Amino acid sequence: MNFDEIPIRVRYGETDQMGVVHHGNYALYLEMGRTEWLRKKGVSYNQMEKNGIMLPVISMRLDFKKSAVYDEVVKVKTQLKKTPSVRIEFDYEITNQADEIIVTASTELVFINMETKRPMKCPDYILEKMNN
Amino acid sequence: MNFDEIPIRVRYGETDQMGVVHHGNYALYLEMGRTEWLRKKGVSYNQMEKNGIMLPVISMRLDFKKSAVYDEVVKVKTQLKKTPSVRIEFDYEITNQADEIIVTASTELVFINMETKRPMKCPDYILEKMNN
Amino acid sequence: MNFDEIPIRVRYGETDQMGVVHHGNYALYLEMGRTEWLRKKGVSYNQMEKNGIMLPVISMRLDFKKSAVYDEVVKVKTQLKKTPSVRIEFDYEITNQADEIIVTASTELVFINMETKRPMKCPDYILEKMNN
Amino acid sequence: MNFDEIPIRVRYGETDQMGVVHHGNYALYLEMGRTEWLRKKGVSYNQMEKNGIMLPVISMRLDFKKSAVYDEVVKVKTQLKKTPSVRIEFDYEITNQADEIIVTASTELVFINMETKRPMKCPDYILEKMNN
Repeated sequence: MNFDEIPIRVRYGETDQMGVVHHGNYALYLEMGRTEWLRKKGVSYNQMEKNGIMLPVISMRLDFKKSAVYDEVVKVKTQLKKTPSVRIEFDYEITNQADEIIVTASTELVFINMETKRPMKCPDYILEKMNN
Repeated sequence: MNFDEIPIRVRYGETDQMGVVHHGNYALYLEMGRTEWLRKKGVSYNQMEKNGIMLPVISMRLDFKKSAVYDEVVKVKTQLKKTPSVRIEFDYEITNQADEIIVTASTELVFINMETKRPMKCPDYILEKMNN
Repeated sequence: MNFDEIPIRVRYGETDQMGVVHHGNYALYLEMGRTEWLRKKGVSYNQMEKNGIMLPVISMRLDFKKSAVYDEVVKVKTQLKKTPSVRIEFDYEITNQADEIIVTASTELVFINMETKRPMKCPDYILEKMNN
Repeated sequence: MNFDEIPIRVRYGETDQMGVVHHGNYALYLEMGRTEWLRKKGVSYNQMEKNGIMLPVISMRLDFKKSAVYDEVVKVKTQLKKTPSVRIEFDYEITNQADEIIVTASTELVFINMETKRPMKCPDYILEKMNN
C-alpha cells in the first residue's frame, strides 16, 4: 500500500492575518507527509542524505479548496504516484477535522548523487522497500 | 505593461541544510512580487483588505530549475496573465544574479467580499488601474 | 504540577545551511510548548482568543547551548514560573534525543482584552484551572 | 560609527492571526540587520563562512513594545556593543513608520572555526574593518 496519513496540529505562527494557515506553509506539511511515508516504508530520508543522496523538489502544485485554522489537527495523506526512477512523484490530500479536503497537491523530486551533483536512478535497496 | 520586477536578497534563515533556499520560501517571494506589481499599478493590497476585499491564493504551481543561495539578490518578475474577473492570475520568473531562470511559477487568486465571504468580480476602480 | 513536556520532530524546512535548526524557529517550538501546557490544564488558547482574550508575547529570551538536527525528536519542557496576574511567565528547556539540554528560554505574555485592547488580569476560571 | 539602519517591508506571510508580525519573525529581521551592518564595514558574512568561519547565535533577547503590521516599512537599527573577541554582541532597535520603538533586542554570536568546530577569536582582518 503506497499510501500513508499523518496528523499535523496547526501552529499559531503558521496562520496569517486572514486567520488561516498561510498557503506557503503547506510546503512544510507535504514535506512531513513524504518523510513519514518513506519512514513507514523503512527508508529514512535523513539516512539517505548521509549516504550521499539528496532529493530536491523540482515541481510543486497546490490547489487550495478550503482553509485550515489555528489548533486544528489536519491530516496529510501521501501517495506514491508511480514506481520511481530518476524522479519520484507524490500526490497529497490534506483534510480538516470534518474530513473535508482542504488542499490537493503533487510534488516531483529528483534523486541527486551529492558527490557528482548529477541525477541518478532510485537505488535498488530503496525501490525494494517501496514495493513492499 | 503588465510586468514588474523586484530584487530580493536571500536571508540566511531562508536556506535549508542543502545550502540553498528552501523551496517553500518561494511562496513568500511570489507574494512580494505581486504586492509590488499591484503597488506600481496604484493598488495597495493592504488598502484593498481594509476596504473589505481579500485575495486568497487558490492555486500555486512552481517549477524549480536551479537553486538560489544565501545573500544572493534574486529578481522576481511578475506578469498579469489576463484581465481579471473573479480570479486574478499571475505568472512569475525568478532569476539569479547570472540572469539564469531558477524558478517559474503561476498563481491564481480569487476576489472575496469579506462581509459576505463570497467571491466577487474585480472592482472597476482596480480594473481601470490595471489597464493603465 | 505546573510542568509539561512535548516531543517535536524537526522539519527539514526548519534547518538552515549550517545543517541545524535555525535559531528563529525555536520561537514556534516554545509556542507549541505553552499551548500544550495550557491544554493539559484544561485551557484552550484557541477558545480563549474566541472569548476575546489574547496573549501576545512581550519578551522572549533564548540561550542556545547545542544544536538540533533534521528529523531529531526534541523535547520541549514548559513550566509556569509563578501565579499569573496581568502577565504570565513560562520557562522552557529543550532537550535532544541524548537528553542533553540544547536550549533554555523564557517568555512573558500579557493578557489583553481584545475589545478594549487593554491589559487585564488573568480570568479567575483560568487561574483555577492552572492551580490544579 | 558602529551603527547601521536598514528598512524592511513586512511580508504578508510574516503576520499571524492577531493581524501583526508574528514575534518569531523578528529573529530574521535582526539577522538581516547584522548582515548589512557587517557589509557596510566591508565584511561579507557569506564570504566569512566560505572562509571557514561561522557565527552561530548563542543568545537572543527580544522585548516587544508595539506591533508591526503588514506592508509597513520598519527600520532595524543595529549597533555593535563592544569590540568582539570570541563573541560578538549586537544591540538592536526596531522602529515603525511613526518612528516609535516597537522592539528592542540583543544577540550574542560566537566565532567558530568550521574545521575544528571550536570557538576562535575574531580574525584580525575583521577587527580592523570593524574599527573603521
